[in-house]
Amino acid sequence: MTNWKCILTYDGTPYHGWQVQPSVPTVQGTLAAVIRHVTGETVLPQGSGRTDTGVHALAQVASFALASPIPAANLHRALNRALPASIRILSITPADAGFHARHSARGKTYEYRIFPRLRRATEEICSPMLAPYVWDCPWRLDLSLMQLAAPAILGEHDFTSFAASDPDLTARQDDVSEPRSSSRRIDASLWTARDDLYTYRVSGSGFLHHMVRNLVGTFVEIGAGRIAVDSLPRIIAARNRSAAGPTAPARGLFLTAVAYDLIDVEY
Amino acid sequence: MTNWKCILTYDGTPYHGWQVQPSVPTVQGTLAAVIRHVTGETVLPQGSGRTDTGVHALAQVASFALASPIPAANLHRALNRALPASIRILSITPADAGFHARHSARGKTYEYRIFPRLRRATEEICSPMLAPYVWDCPWRLDLSLMQLAAPAILGEHDFTSFAASDPDLTARQDDVSEPRSSSRRIDASLWTARDDLYTYRVSGSGFLHHMVRNLVGTFVEIGAGRIAVDSLPRIIAARNRSAAGPTAPARGLFLTAVAYDLIDVEY
Repeated sequence: MTNWKCILTYDGTPYHGWQVQPSVPTVQGTLAAVIRHVTGETVLPQGSGRTDTGVHALAQVASFALASPIPAANLHRALNRALPASIRILSITPADAGFHARHSARGKTYEYRIFPRLRRATEEICSPMLAPYVWDCPWRLDLSLMQLAAPAILGEHDFTSFAASDPDLTARQDDVSEPRSSSRRIDASLWTARDDLYTYRVSGSGFLHHMVRNLVGTFVEIGAGRIAVDSLPRIIAARNRSAAGPTAPARGLFLTAVAYDLIDVEY
Repeated sequence: MTNWKCILTYDGTPYHGWQVQPSVPTVQGTLAAVIRHVTGETVLPQGSGRTDTGVHALAQVASFALASPIPAANLHRALNRALPASIRILSITPADAGFHARHSARGKTYEYRIFPRLRRATEEICSPMLAPYVWDCPWRLDLSLMQLAAPAILGEHDFTSFAASDPDLTARQDDVSEPRSSSRRIDASLWTARDDLYTYRVSGSGFLHHMVRNLVGTFVEIGAGRIAVDSLPRIIAARNRSAAGPTAPARGLFLTAVAYDLIDVEY
């Protein structure tokens, strides 16, 4: 058996999220079908975490074990040929037998992209070709307020205020490395202007369900002047979803990196 | 009544082409539904021509007459708010009563985008976010051969060799300003390398059904070395679809401009 570590990128638009579901297309289900087609083996690739419907990945990580003695380069080429153009494997490498894309993950980075209202009305039209990959946000945002507020979430906090108010929280966490806890450590939180977009990058030990989109929705309220720039400590302390801003749309969100201890990655 | 000239851009991915059809989403049908929603009036906007399933537009032109005395800026804003993000109106202006987006058209420009195989295998992965808008062409292409061959189609020719071999040709022409003729005048034909893509721009009096995609498929055969660089005069003279190369995929094709006589445009 070879335990494979696979880094993949996908356009979330045509999928009902990562996790396999009956009778709707999902990334995990599509990947499993293609692995079966190529190798004849039935496996369920484990992702580093779920992504929701419409959320994209620049670098999702998946792991699965195969008995077939196929060389990595051949497997890589065969899987990419069989996959739809909306999913591409960037790399596939043999991993330590104990490597598990989700359990071994030590951190993740997400990026959120906003098409901002900056210019004259006639220039503010978000291209249909860009629209699946940004939030065409209807308000004028003061980026400097969002930049000023961003560091307030750094460090370890209980992020209940930014977690989807699902009935069964633990079943819906994006990661399950820290089950039954709403505490997460945030290592980076930064708003920048780039390529005519406002971009948010956030790195942390893990993220609760909808956490990045709820953070972005709250930063946007700050940028629009509807929530005060120094409100984040109070919102975090409230441990109440209704204290924070609304959930930003899925289409602007990209999973951009998953971090592992070196020992899990090197072979 | 006001006769409106509307310039719109759309992502062709979610649509079964421009032309309205029962029970499948089309650009024309979506635009008609949104006009009805906004104004209460039932009109069928006339496009400068049809685009096929998956073909995009950076600047399609549509015309339609409305009784509602709504100012252009308000109509523009209301339509864009009601349209899905995959269709955006770039401008809407009152036109001469005789203006018709298709009958008044004097020429069109299309652009075709290819993701080329240039680099080492690991860098040749076409991003899933780019894939709906390019042909991820599997062959190494010699762009200089395609550039050398491109001018051979300039001028007026019978392009039967590049027309879809439909049973009813006249019913399937992209334009019907010159019905029952397969002769078209090409004013520009140019291959360039830009933004890591190979891009073909072609302008002409009009285009037969699949003509641009069949031209691109033929240029790609030339770039791949499977058709000689000086073959185009012979292929045109053959007036036989089987003399030319295959049809390039729809996803790489953009309608980028429609030309009108100034008298039709100015008001």
